[in-house]
Amino acid sequence: MDTTYIAGAGMTRFGKFPNTSLAGLANEAVDAALTDAGVRAEDVGFVAFGNATSSVITGQAMIQGQLALLDGALAGARTVNVENACASSSSALHLAMMAVASGSCDVALAVGAEKMSHPDKTRAFDALGRAIDISDPLVSESPSRNSIFMDLYAQEARRYAAETGAPVEAFARTASTVHYHGSLNPNAQHRHPHSPEEILASRMIVEPLTLLMCSPIGDGAAAVIVTRDRPSTDPIAITGAALQSGRRREGGQLVTRTAKAALEQAGRKAADADVIELHDAAAPAALVILEELGAVGRGEAWKLAMEGELRHDGRLPVNTSGGLISRGHPVGATGTAQIVELVDQLRGRAGDRQVSDAQFALAQNAGGAVTLDDPYTAAVCAVTVLERV
Amino acid sequence: MDTTYIAGAGMTRFGKFPNTSLAGLANEAVDAALTDAGVRAEDVGFVAFGNATSSVITGQAMIQGQLALLDGALAGARTVNVENACASSSSALHLAMMAVASGSCDVALAVGAEKMSHPDKTRAFDALGRAIDISDPLVSESPSRNSIFMDLYAQEARRYAAETGAPVEAFARTASTVHYHGSLNPNAQHRHPHSPEEILASRMIVEPLTLLMCSPIGDGAAAVIVTRDRPSTDPIAITGAALQSGRRREGGQLVTRTAKAALEQAGRKAADADVIELHDAAAPAALVILEELGAVGRGEAWKLAMEGELRHDGRLPVNTSGGLISRGHPVGATGTAQIVELVDQLRGRAGDRQVSDAQFALAQNAGGAVTLDDPYTAAVCAVTVLERV
Repeated sequence: MDTTYIAGAGMTRFGKFPNTSLAGLANEAVDAALTDAGVRAEDVGFVAFGNATSSVITGQAMIQGQLALLDGALAGARTVNVENACASSSSALHLAMMAVASGSCDVALAVGAEKMSHPDKTRAFDALGRAIDISDPLVSESPSRNSIFMDLYAQEARRYAAETGAPVEAFARTASTVHYHGSLNPNAQHRHPHSPEEILASRMIVEPLTLLMCSPIGDGAAAVIVTRDRPSTDPIAITGAALQSGRRREGGQLVTRTAKAALEQAGRKAADADVIELHDAAAPAALVILEELGAVGRGEAWKLAMEGELRHDGRLPVNTSGGLISRGHPVGATGTAQIVELVDQLRGRAGDRQVSDAQFALAQNAGGAVTLDDPYTAAVCAVTVLERV
Repeated sequence: MDTTYIAGAGMTRFGKFPNTSLAGLANEAVDAALTDAGVRAEDVGFVAFGNATSSVITGQAMIQGQLALLDGALAGARTVNVENACASSSSALHLAMMAVASGSCDVALAVGAEKMSHPDKTRAFDALGRAIDISDPLVSESPSRNSIFMDLYAQEARRYAAETGAPVEAFARTASTVHYHGSLNPNAQHRHPHSPEEILASRMIVEPLTLLMCSPIGDGAAAVIVTRDRPSTDPIAITGAALQSGRRREGGQLVTRTAKAALEQAGRKAADADVIELHDAAAPAALVILEELGAVGRGEAWKLAMEGELRHDGRLPVNTSGGLISRGHPVGATGTAQIVELVDQLRGRAGDRQVSDAQFALAQNAGGAVTLDDPYTAAVCAVTVLERV
């Protein structure tokens, strides 16, 4: 696939917005992206609409995108609803790239929109529980007071600690770093810095994950405009993109092979990335994924975290947006929100959390789980390479 | 977008299969399509998986495709779940075309799979009720003993009768023709011919639609292999394809503008089509759609139906598969099933229902509804032009 470009990106703030509909969120993000790109709505030839939980949260299924856009700038646009669990909108981005690279249109839009907050708080956990094989006998053994994914992330964290010697303080330091980033991001759901001590003292969710290490339930939308032609101002190229599905019990190998495919396209190495947005649905996952991506060697990520090197001004800036735990994780919107952050970083407009002279950025987004036994395997992994050109 | 090709297609029989899982259905169709195309599973670089009702029928959402394919030939393949209501798998086909035309891969697969039958028969109607705006105040006025879509199709049929003078016998003749076709199709859900009299005498669902004019609830899967390069044997080209979303209250104009876009790409006219598969969720819709497509003039379709000209050996062969009412309508599988039938027709292997010397075929698939007031407007329309080359 030829190189495609990002002409603009925009998002809503993430949070809990009881009075804003999915349509309201989606159109706010779309309008922001169109404005940022300087593109007219009528020039958008394809819309990939990522949404994962609406069929459970509100009951609206099948045509979420068409309904959300019906009274907005993109009414009537060629629209496909994409569901790939928490990787729905990185999958949507992948389709938007294909749409322009195929010559089917010159400008395409990827939007992720999710409204998870609901007066009935069990609905969000119920919805997340559909992103695994619901017929898996392991499911019924799981407690239902939390998302089943926190059980999986906790299992992964314990394994990482056992294999690398990472202390729980490293997980707390990692969470503290991304909460610090989130405190600097006006669009973050949580905008409070937290010390490692506070994080360790917060309520235990599943050993060793405390509340402040876990991504919250929330609402939000993020949109990205993709073009075939190089934009005349501030162009950002998508030089590599891979989307892969998990095979039974392959565990983190899924991340490694997806990253390898994307990085080979770009001719780059993960270790050279200036800034990385990755899928830290729980804080320890950031460390695991950094190693799976090949950005650092095995057992090294937690040491970098302890040294503060994952900060925006450190050697390996990670989740400068605040990541899933601080910026928030309205699941279908997360993939495009990662891209919004990286566009801001590459364009040098990330304010107080700006990475100095960012040229090469990497996004990793994951979704669902096809197998649950340790190590669990995600259903989907997307890795995208962005470069300032 | 450059011309892409269909290298092979295959499907399960449609019907009610209580002992077959969604995965079982999907893999049977995928294997049939791979065999038909002479393509190895490892050469498939992208899978678009269309499924619309699973999140309600079984509760499995978000990663239906990855799970369905997990133990089949395509385990681990790059997969995106596509939801566009009853047009989910024609949308999947559209994405498969983009995937190969973009150069992202040489071979892509579109699969539609649906399992709607369930011991709790209300679930299928519940699921179909999610393909409209569930917040629309018109919804609560609707009776719930049937799919809400039968109310919409009945409204459309009454309007067509009032505007064109079509008698109810024309609807019965249309249904009789497609049931006759279905009786000749080994993959059809209903394989019984029915006389117009029998059809009129069957149970009234919503005036003027009787049971034998309506598509049934069912299960099934259909898959299509799309290639960038022209296959060496029996190539079929996709010379036009359009996918569009409905705007408020545009009614049948959605079909007309979608068909126009696809036919202009192909440089063809609907009236010249040798065979048409269209979205007859209720029999009168076939007549309405033929006119919206521009295949015949306004008010002419019902006369052709009365004369038997919609039969496979008539002047304008329509739904030689049996269409939605006889072949069946497991909703996410319908779009690709239409393509399977047209591939069989263009390759001259449609047996007793073969259209003589079919060279140019047209498929029209619709999904959901964005507005319900008369004339209701579908959320999605897909029109695909296939030609023997």
